[in-house]
Amino acid sequence: MHNSCSTMQSHFVDITTEVPEAHPVAPPPKQTTLQRLKIWIKETFFSDDPLRQFRGQPLQRKLILGAQYVFPVLEWAPKYNLKLLKSDLISGITIASLAIPQGISYAKLANLPPILGLYSSFVPPLVYVVLGSSKDLGVGPVSIASLVMGSMLQDEVSPIEDPDLFLKLALTSTFFAGLFQAALGILRLGFIIDFLSKAILLGFMAGSAVIVSLQQLKGLLGIKHFTKKMAIIPVMKSVFHKTDEWSWQTIVMGISFLIILLVARHVSIKKPKLFWVSAGAPLMCVIISTILAFAIKAQHHGISIIGKLPKGINPPSTDKLIFNGSHLSLVIKTGFITGILSLTEGIAVGRTFAALRNYKVDGNKEMMAIGLMNVVGCTTSCYITTGSFSRSAVNNSAGAKTAMSNVIMSLAVLVTLLFLMPLFHYTPNVILGAIIITAVIGLIDIPAAYLLWKIDKFDFLVMLVAFFGVIFISVQYGLAMAVGLSILKVLLQITRPKTVMLGKIPGTDIYRDLHHYKEAARVPGFLILRIEAPINFANITYLHERIIRWTEEVEENNLMTDFSLQFVVLEMSAVSTVDSSGVSLFKDLNTALGHKGVELALVNPLAEVLVKLKKADEGHNKIREDYLFVTVGEAVASLSSTMKRPTVGEEVQETVVEY
Amino acid sequence: MHNSCSTMQSHFVDITTEVPEAHPVAPPPKQTTLQRLKIWIKETFFSDDPLRQFRGQPLQRKLILGAQYVFPVLEWAPKYNLKLLKSDLISGITIASLAIPQGISYAKLANLPPILGLYSSFVPPLVYVVLGSSKDLGVGPVSIASLVMGSMLQDEVSPIEDPDLFLKLALTSTFFAGLFQAALGILRLGFIIDFLSKAILLGFMAGSAVIVSLQQLKGLLGIKHFTKKMAIIPVMKSVFHKTDEWSWQTIVMGISFLIILLVARHVSIKKPKLFWVSAGAPLMCVIISTILAFAIKAQHHGISIIGKLPKGINPPSTDKLIFNGSHLSLVIKTGFITGILSLTEGIAVGRTFAALRNYKVDGNKEMMAIGLMNVVGCTTSCYITTGSFSRSAVNNSAGAKTAMSNVIMSLAVLVTLLFLMPLFHYTPNVILGAIIITAVIGLIDIPAAYLLWKIDKFDFLVMLVAFFGVIFISVQYGLAMAVGLSILKVLLQITRPKTVMLGKIPGTDIYRDLHHYKEAARVPGFLILRIEAPINFANITYLHERIIRWTEEVEENNLMTDFSLQFVVLEMSAVSTVDSSGVSLFKDLNTALGHKGVELALVNPLAEVLVKLKKADEGHNKIREDYLFVTVGEAVASLSSTMKRPTVGEEVQETVVEY
Repeated sequence: MHNSCSTMQSHFVDITTEVPEAHPVAPPPKQTTLQRLKIWIKETFFSDDPLRQFRGQPLQRKLILGAQYVFPVLEWAPKYNLKLLKSDLISGITIASLAIPQGISYAKLANLPPILGLYSSFVPPLVYVVLGSSKDLGVGPVSIASLVMGSMLQDEVSPIEDPDLFLKLALTSTFFAGLFQAALGILRLGFIIDFLSKAILLGFMAGSAVIVSLQQLKGLLGIKHFTKKMAIIPVMKSVFHKTDEWSWQTIVMGISFLIILLVARHVSIKKPKLFWVSAGAPLMCVIISTILAFAIKAQHHGISIIGKLPKGINPPSTDKLIFNGSHLSLVIKTGFITGILSLTEGIAVGRTFAALRNYKVDGNKEMMAIGLMNVVGCTTSCYITTGSFSRSAVNNSAGAKTAMSNVIMSLAVLVTLLFLMPLFHYTPNVILGAIIITAVIGLIDIPAAYLLWKIDKFDFLVMLVAFFGVIFISVQYGLAMAVGLSILKVLLQITRPKTVMLGKIPGTDIYRDLHHYKEAARVPGFLILRIEAPINFANITYLHERIIRWTEEVEENNLMTDFSLQFVVLEMSAVSTVDSSGVSLFKDLNTALGHKGVELALVNPLAEVLVKLKKADEGHNKIREDYLFVTVGEAVASLSSTMKRPTVGEEVQETVVEY
Repeated sequence: MHNSCSTMQSHFVDITTEVPEAHPVAPPPKQTTLQRLKIWIKETFFSDDPLRQFRGQPLQRKLILGAQYVFPVLEWAPKYNLKLLKSDLISGITIASLAIPQGISYAKLANLPPILGLYSSFVPPLVYVVLGSSKDLGVGPVSIASLVMGSMLQDEVSPIEDPDLFLKLALTSTFFAGLFQAALGILRLGFIIDFLSKAILLGFMAGSAVIVSLQQLKGLLGIKHFTKKMAIIPVMKSVFHKTDEWSWQTIVMGISFLIILLVARHVSIKKPKLFWVSAGAPLMCVIISTILAFAIKAQHHGISIIGKLPKGINPPSTDKLIFNGSHLSLVIKTGFITGILSLTEGIAVGRTFAALRNYKVDGNKEMMAIGLMNVVGCTTSCYITTGSFSRSAVNNSAGAKTAMSNVIMSLAVLVTLLFLMPLFHYTPNVILGAIIITAVIGLIDIPAAYLLWKIDKFDFLVMLVAFFGVIFISVQYGLAMAVGLSILKVLLQITRPKTVMLGKIPGTDIYRDLHHYKEAARVPGFLILRIEAPINFANITYLHERIIRWTEEVEENNLMTDFSLQFVVLEMSAVSTVDSSGVSLFKDLNTALGHKGVELALVNPLAEVLVKLKKADEGHNKIREDYLFVTVGEAVASLSSTMKRPTVGEEVQETVVEY
């Protein structure tokens, strides 16, 4: 059967070769520069076409839609009902129980007073509820941003010697982070965070997890004098040079609770239904350990405790923002990096769960929401917050239906702030260490790393660079190196585009890569190449040399027993654009090939390419109309009819030479 | 006739739809990571396949070729004859006549003793003749490198207070420049300079021409105290704040000689046969003006003259290279910047004239040649040299045939150094300015700029950035900004790849862009998109959103009267590679489309893409074998046979809905 239609095929080719009126390459529709610019701007900055939903709506509806666009809360709030509230209540309480100990621990990670962790779990969620478009995001401080902010700021200011200034710097850089995040959203530059690829984040998170866990050895071993550096070397130093400071009571307590937490986590992973085990575990451990510590007067046995915590809700902190003085550049830098990092985490988490539950989160809107959340936050004693991996996971598995669960959580935190703070007086620091370790250990994803290795070795390399960069140098440099490497790869792909030799699949009119489709065979007298990248300043030199080399190679291997090379056909379907340097390539090729008596034909040049070629040709027309074709098949058919040696149609099918 | 075969076509489609065994997508041949790595390295660093010419040659021939590869001189020297010598002699003398005054004035630009300019026009050309592969390059000191080196070094050391140390630093940074240039060549990183596109060079050259010309106002107006800065503002300042220093005699002399030179140049442009007019003009002017100055005792009329110059050839200067002490980092930095700048100028000039006369220059070899030239140079009292725009232009128009003209020039310079130095005692500085202006004015290419504007507005912008950057900020920053902008554009193209909707060209089996080919029409029930870029971390988010938006748009515009959208077909011919993030796109699309009851099919995934998809699929196979097709035609044919509504074959051809 296949044969029959294949013969029909070759028969069809015959006809067109005898009558070489192939389908003409259409001149693309005219476009003014302004039109092109408009399209470019739309595709680049408004690719999600935000105004689409407004079209053809009555004014009133438009207004409502507009309001809903700015405040997503207006979308779901009206439809809110008791049934939803019930599930949100449960999930809200659950994340609260996680948020409180987490908040305290992460604040310590950032070298800030523990209470700030709770402040930051109260105000920001309320802001997000109004502006955010995700239903599952659990908002609050996160380990990585806290860690980076802490380590970057302490390069200039010691949190022990000058805690007040340190706090001011933290709040100010939170302000800049928020400003920067909102700006990205408003300017619709959301795609910037796309440059943090999965590979990078994988390595970066694993690296940070390792560093953070090691940092916790301070609490876990009860060491008092500990390095403030983030890199692995100094940390290990201060661990093993301070063995005299190790306190066995702390170690025993720490290890045992760590084991409990890890087991709880393991249970929930194995049986997702038991999510509440790992979700509730931290709070349980805090309560138990606190009672224990209180009972045995832990502080007298070398087990350090949190100690007195102030009562009451967030004090305003506008007075704490300092925009002058010597540290400005530091806070801006810190704001930028922590901003980007927390944004990446927030957006990634939001997208993940949106995909899971099949709804959309608008990247740019999310950025504005998170940004404003931080701007507001920094005026009410909150340091940088975003959508957190751990909280959102718990929130989702606890069955959260809407962002309302964030409100519940922040109410729970509010109650804690108002009445329950004294209870944390005896909470041992070691327990916080254990909680942090359990949280971050989940960020190390070995299977994903293995998959990376399998799919793309280069991405694996990028991941390693991020990982070791973070561990041995510093969080920000590790990140920078990995990003640089990925961009370099993209640039290299542009500078060295693939050129593939095509052959005809016998019995069809299909031309494919000779090395991929073994049955494909070369057509005598032709060299058919496809160029697999836009042609621009960065690769014309290479492409010119490479194509000439192809022709030379073809001529050298005397593949063409009785045919000499007569036509070079460039398959241009994959050449999405050319720039002004690019167009010159064809002129140069024409001249170079002309010297060899070989002619150049182009197949399926795309609209933009066609336009630019025409413009460049004006006056001295180099690419002749009749050397443009829509398909390789038609090019071969109509060119072979003009071939010097009398061989067309059928023969083109039969006398194909194996490569 | 076309009709007949078109019906045959549709008929053919019929058959395959009834028998949907389309041509299978072949699994690509197995390749180990090592093999892939080897290919990658070859294509990236040895794309010119330098060893090809050696293959299959007898040993002796191999040795000869090898020697010729290292010393291009061996290629042309044996074939050298008197006829060639004649033209090389003329051009050699001509550039010598230009080189001598130029050398002196450029050395001044670099705050170095004038004699160094002549030293640098003697040794380096001889080195280049042996190693270089260009026939037109005129080697010697150049204005831009001289200026940059002079201004960078004087930031730390004053050439007036400590001329000896300044000289040492200049020679040492020349050494580093050479080292760096040679290293680029040896490591085969030649493509780095490809990032300096034509657009950039156009703007850069024009900008430098303006700046250098303005610098010459010093000599032309006879101003004694002049800024050493390169930007336009300070230059104009010192021109108009020093009006008291203007000397009318100098101005008269300068203007009149400038006019003579420009007229001479104009004549040679109009009548290429009269090239010798512009070629000989500089030397003539020098001689006449010198005699004139001697006759009228110019120095007593406020016309500054070169004055006494030491006699004798280059003294060795190995003892002047200092690799220790506080200035090391400065000389390395200076070496790097001047190195890359002079390299760009040299290679650009080399390539330009090679294209003009249709021969090849090997970028990497040129870099080694220029690099070694400078390394040798700095041991013989030469500061940084390269292929100079002005000299090469004169050299070429004077009819140089081989690099021998450089030998002639350096011999002429040798004779000058040994015997003729006293004659330059009375040469007025103003004449040097006039010569330089005439030389660089040719670098401003308005028509090319206009063509740029016509072809690619963005490249035009890049050119403007380079131009104004050079004029108002500085040469190196102007360059950096332009390069950054070009790279940004490339990255944007990657982040926002084009997705085009394809339609069927009636009466054929060809699918093309609906907006380009107006006659093309959509196939009911299908959405056929082609993705026009590699899929990677930087664009998956965009592509996912964009493709979903396409489907929504198609569903909204109820184009499909009685057909609902059932298949999304992705034409993957233009997707040259995917990375690990890229493969996830297809999984996500599958799920997202699944929710809409739409199925995803891929057409012609290239070998690399196919391999990675397979690897990513292992275990949970997401992309089903029978949803891979070789051509869109076959995809449509065999899918429509599985379509829910009973409509296949013939109808698919006829009931095409206009878009």
